[in-house]
Amino acid sequence: MSFENRPSGRASNDLRSIRIIRQYTRHAEGSVLIEFGDTKVICTASIEEKVPGFLKGKGQGWMTAEYGMLPRSTHTRMDREAAKGKQSGRTQEIQRLIGRSLRAAFDLQAFGERTLHLDCDVIQADGGTRTASITGAMVAAYDAVSKLAQAGLIPAIPIKHFVAAVSVGVFRGLPVLDLDYIEDADCDTDMNVVMTDAGHFVEVQGTAEGEAFDRATMNRLLDLAEHGIAELVRLQKAALELPQ
Amino acid sequence: MSFENRPSGRASNDLRSIRIIRQYTRHAEGSVLIEFGDTKVICTASIEEKVPGFLKGKGQGWMTAEYGMLPRSTHTRMDREAAKGKQSGRTQEIQRLIGRSLRAAFDLQAFGERTLHLDCDVIQADGGTRTASITGAMVAAYDAVSKLAQAGLIPAIPIKHFVAAVSVGVFRGLPVLDLDYIEDADCDTDMNVVMTDAGHFVEVQGTAEGEAFDRATMNRLLDLAEHGIAELVRLQKAALELPQ
Amino acid sequence: MSFENRPSGRASNDLRSIRIIRQYTRHAEGSVLIEFGDTKVICTASIEEKVPGFLKGKGQGWMTAEYGMLPRSTHTRMDREAAKGKQSGRTQEIQRLIGRSLRAAFDLQAFGERTLHLDCDVIQADGGTRTASITGAMVAAYDAVSKLAQAGLIPAIPIKHFVAAVSVGVFRGLPVLDLDYIEDADCDTDMNVVMTDAGHFVEVQGTAEGEAFDRATMNRLLDLAEHGIAELVRLQKAALELPQ
Amino acid sequence: MSFENRPSGRASNDLRSIRIIRQYTRHAEGSVLIEFGDTKVICTASIEEKVPGFLKGKGQGWMTAEYGMLPRSTHTRMDREAAKGKQSGRTQEIQRLIGRSLRAAFDLQAFGERTLHLDCDVIQADGGTRTASITGAMVAAYDAVSKLAQAGLIPAIPIKHFVAAVSVGVFRGLPVLDLDYIEDADCDTDMNVVMTDAGHFVEVQGTAEGEAFDRATMNRLLDLAEHGIAELVRLQKAALELPQ
Amino acid sequence: MSFENRPSGRASNDLRSIRIIRQYTRHAEGSVLIEFGDTKVICTASIEEKVPGFLKGKGQGWMTAEYGMLPRSTHTRMDREAAKGKQSGRTQEIQRLIGRSLRAAFDLQAFGERTLHLDCDVIQADGGTRTASITGAMVAAYDAVSKLAQAGLIPAIPIKHFVAAVSVGVFRGLPVLDLDYIEDADCDTDMNVVMTDAGHFVEVQGTAEGEAFDRATMNRLLDLAEHGIAELVRLQKAALELPQ
Amino acid sequence: MSFENRPSGRASNDLRSIRIIRQYTRHAEGSVLIEFGDTKVICTASIEEKVPGFLKGKGQGWMTAEYGMLPRSTHTRMDREAAKGKQSGRTQEIQRLIGRSLRAAFDLQAFGERTLHLDCDVIQADGGTRTASITGAMVAAYDAVSKLAQAGLIPAIPIKHFVAAVSVGVFRGLPVLDLDYIEDADCDTDMNVVMTDAGHFVEVQGTAEGEAFDRATMNRLLDLAEHGIAELVRLQKAALELPQ
Repeated sequence: MSFENRPSGRASNDLRSIRIIRQYTRHAEGSVLIEFGDTKVICTASIEEKVPGFLKGKGQGWMTAEYGMLPRSTHTRMDREAAKGKQSGRTQEIQRLIGRSLRAAFDLQAFGERTLHLDCDVIQADGGTRTASITGAMVAAYDAVSKLAQAGLIPAIPIKHFVAAVSVGVFRGLPVLDLDYIEDADCDTDMNVVMTDAGHFVEVQGTAEGEAFDRATMNRLLDLAEHGIAELVRLQKAALELPQ
Repeated sequence: MSFENRPSGRASNDLRSIRIIRQYTRHAEGSVLIEFGDTKVICTASIEEKVPGFLKGKGQGWMTAEYGMLPRSTHTRMDREAAKGKQSGRTQEIQRLIGRSLRAAFDLQAFGERTLHLDCDVIQADGGTRTASITGAMVAAYDAVSKLAQAGLIPAIPIKHFVAAVSVGVFRGLPVLDLDYIEDADCDTDMNVVMTDAGHFVEVQGTAEGEAFDRATMNRLLDLAEHGIAELVRLQKAALELPQ
Repeated sequence: MSFENRPSGRASNDLRSIRIIRQYTRHAEGSVLIEFGDTKVICTASIEEKVPGFLKGKGQGWMTAEYGMLPRSTHTRMDREAAKGKQSGRTQEIQRLIGRSLRAAFDLQAFGERTLHLDCDVIQADGGTRTASITGAMVAAYDAVSKLAQAGLIPAIPIKHFVAAVSVGVFRGLPVLDLDYIEDADCDTDMNVVMTDAGHFVEVQGTAEGEAFDRATMNRLLDLAEHGIAELVRLQKAALELPQ
Repeated sequence: MSFENRPSGRASNDLRSIRIIRQYTRHAEGSVLIEFGDTKVICTASIEEKVPGFLKGKGQGWMTAEYGMLPRSTHTRMDREAAKGKQSGRTQEIQRLIGRSLRAAFDLQAFGERTLHLDCDVIQADGGTRTASITGAMVAAYDAVSKLAQAGLIPAIPIKHFVAAVSVGVFRGLPVLDLDYIEDADCDTDMNVVMTDAGHFVEVQGTAEGEAFDRATMNRLLDLAEHGIAELVRLQKAALELPQ
Repeated sequence: MSFENRPSGRASNDLRSIRIIRQYTRHAEGSVLIEFGDTKVICTASIEEKVPGFLKGKGQGWMTAEYGMLPRSTHTRMDREAAKGKQSGRTQEIQRLIGRSLRAAFDLQAFGERTLHLDCDVIQADGGTRTASITGAMVAAYDAVSKLAQAGLIPAIPIKHFVAAVSVGVFRGLPVLDLDYIEDADCDTDMNVVMTDAGHFVEVQGTAEGEAFDRATMNRLLDLAEHGIAELVRLQKAALELPQ
Repeated sequence: MSFENRPSGRASNDLRSIRIIRQYTRHAEGSVLIEFGDTKVICTASIEEKVPGFLKGKGQGWMTAEYGMLPRSTHTRMDREAAKGKQSGRTQEIQRLIGRSLRAAFDLQAFGERTLHLDCDVIQADGGTRTASITGAMVAAYDAVSKLAQAGLIPAIPIKHFVAAVSVGVFRGLPVLDLDYIEDADCDTDMNVVMTDAGHFVEVQGTAEGEAFDRATMNRLLDLAEHGIAELVRLQKAALELPQ
């Protein structure tokens, strides 16, 4: 493990400091502020007692995810997407990823004819907003559906397994875990990995921003991701006061 | 003063508990979390070193304001405006109001060829989001331009006076100050007032939601607003550690 | 009363020449051309025998208002909003104001499951287009619902009171009534007031475009508005051949 | 010539009553109200002292046309295009036709680096709004460019010839001129013809709404159109007080 | 007949080489690649077993047409309309023309409660894309509805007559048939004609791009169009292996 | 290798029949029809002699990619994106992927101040449209830039290496290469892999549509992808008549 290489002084397999605060806002059925270091995302889970038209009468639930950034969550102010009248390709890609990742965790059959809306809004960005969003949305979603189960509206919590997400990448030649903005802006390869608490892959998205990467590098990156996700799932369950 | 009438137990001329936290996020030149009770708004002020085309070469500055709500800042989840592809009429009306109010406070001539972008994003709503936005944006804007002055980029802070905003209304027959959501949803008359620290009006917007109101009622409402705004300006200056 | 100050030579409490022509176009149930001096607005009221989905089966009516300007109604040609693909913030603000003002005049319960569409289209602008729109839409709406009552489709005309609107402002230091374009472009304070025939306020919207204004000024402006609106209501009723 | 066949009692080769009122609104360089019977269109011509980017420095002018209908100009209220956020295919087709027709009349080389904006807004519709628009826009455009010539900004009026437009169609088996709404809604064939004062074709657009039509019918329709347009050009020139 | 005048060496009354390939793609009920020389258009006909809401329960069918061009079907790359977020006026005009032309050929009453979607996508453009689209869509539509008839879902093929389309124009003073891009870009008059196999007109759209044209020219152009369309209908029927 | 399992009868490591036809349309600098079995995509490469504003004067080139599907390229007709007024999230995700993949192949520094526009339009879809698009766009791009080099406008072909793409997935428990539609619709895991001719990764995007997948499965899938891409690169070079 090299300690000099990362601007933050972190070891290559260190996560940033992770904080998960539940019940962050009042109205949502689940509401979490998640921090991956200086990246801060509000994740809310809202339950709506109906499903989209194409699912009516089929007895199963639905889940959607949306993602946004406050205009000045970033170093330089971005245009507000609502004012521009459209979401960027990046935004759509991220919210599709969040949705697929969380749907993999859920048993929508057991959820009844309801929709779970996940909203991930970045209030401060320092790299890794999509991985923090997925990891935080998992906790918010758990809180929301637990309330349904406690109220007897569903017989059990309709969650098949936990999912968490982390980025890995090659920064100055070194495979590292959980890239912050400085690392992200300057890395050769960037991979976002979503895994279950059983250590299985839900999503793997790797991009060579500079040099294409070889199979050995991919294997080292996947090792780091497995390590980081195990720790993130531990923190999710601790925040929810669940047995590990 | 009646103490029984308001659901919150507040006296008719009581503000909610007001909190103003500066430097709430890292990247913006000014960044404030303002709370009017359970209403929480992040107000950021971003400085851009250029002006829109129509002002180029005129030696003066520009200011714009945008407003948004997180989808689940409210009791029931609202559609995300970026996903719908347009801002509602209400959103546009509020951001125009914030912009006019803050422009009244500034000396844009003395600001140089710069643009100040104000972003007010509601993370939790309980009535009065526009008045909290104006009051918080004033503080964020002050912080942002102070840095320019401290850096010697402008000779003095280009602020003519402070502005703050508060709502007043008639709730169950009683004129009251700073309506929360329960009061707002059930009031006959609702008025938003923006005033300077000299006690002069910048904006007055009153609407009879139920019965039209008479001149005497308007006078009582304006009295309450004057009282509330004096207190809000005092809190703004305290947060900024300025002499009162 | 000063007679020299206003470019038009009007006394400070003079309205412009007001004309209200009913049945201006053929197809609408109510159709009015209203002129406030050189400001000319076509106001139509259209009755549709259904309500929006959220009101179906509730036994009550609905009312909406839309506002537009012909591209060359103004000194310099404006872009056509239909071609740009969106209504400006100003347009939306005005049509929301027209809608609220007229809804305050109506008993939508007594209107049955119908929608009243008000369309205010400015064909020539010289200041005060929103106040002319409200004042004219009142007459068009009265005509439209009268026909329903005459046809026995509703037991009585579902109007609680008349509303009219006028602008007041401080022009070259003088509080004046019903600003035309020259005055409007150069005034310090501009206030739009909507009142009932009983002299009560429905809407008050005041903005300090230059100097913030004090309480005494506001009182003088409200006095002027009360005077102007009484006259406008008299003209509305005369146009409708109703007893004053 | 049959006199019984048309609902209006007109002979098959009769135009409706045509009215052309110049200087209808104050601000536009050319402003005409044109009436083809109950069809009423405001046509304005606005001069802008610049051309689109692709023509800059080429020494020639440009012309554009836009078309709109007030929402309740028609029997049943139409949605407002500005509110829907897009112009219909029909609107775009008509404004492209108006533009092509008027460009054929002009010598844009001799117009200098200016843009002429034509706006045709229908305030009451009873069939033939596009032909009335073209015929009225010709007069408005003439007025606008005459002012430039009178002011010495261009050496001569840059108009090559007059254009006018009329509809013809087969109504209940009879070829007729200038269809009104009742005829238009029920005709088999509808043709819009734009011609110059020299009797040459600028545009011919014929559509078989029911039965396809044969060459002999087309010839009879073109005869009617020639007759009608000669009369319309005479009325245009009379309105402009030009020698016939 | 002049043989020197046209860049392609064609006689004035020559069509380009026409190719009609059926079953060009696999999924559509009817799928045709049509070539008018270097102009190549994929025309598909898709059957949907429902009608728009306003036709439900009326026992009749519906037909719509859409048109598009691949961005680099043209000499210079055009912007992609899907990326721009809107279809141009030209696109809308063409797809409205295709729809009207094909609706004239069909007996929508006999089609049952179905919708026929026609899609015409230009993969290579060399003039005449709209006439090729109409001519090819006729064949694709025939194929699609034949399958319904063969399957016994409708008693007979609901086609009243064949339609085909061709352009004619005046190129360097000479009336010519079926203009290619070079001719189209440089012609004085351009006319698109849609006719039935009985030689009757469905649509005639003529535009003077340079000089207005006289009645004699129109007659010569219509003669050419009649001749070309007779040949195109012969080729359509040959492609479908129908008796001529 | 199992030969019974796949509906097509292919072995698990068999590509579909691949066809690459160059110079498929006339106007584009590079134009390729690529077929992966029944999936057919037209890929064009267009050179524009300028760069976006933010790159002006920097001496380097730019590349963008756009993707579309003809409405009836699919089993069921899809809505046309141009008519809906927006590209779906899926479309944007794919065109971003194509752009990143091809940018990795190019030396944009050596390309000069030019933009290469890649357009991938699916005319028939049977699974794997994005991998066919990337593989075909590589060939079209090579053709386009070769012409520049041949013309002496750039000193050498600015391509660092070839890229190709293929899908792999787990179908009925079996890892397979190059999924067709039937396999894609029913697979548990789907991974798209983009690699260089040196066997290095440019993009890896794996999604568990059903069960999350373990590390051993990922390794088997990556083995298949390496094998398939080596073959695709061989076919690309053969089509371009380049030495292998």
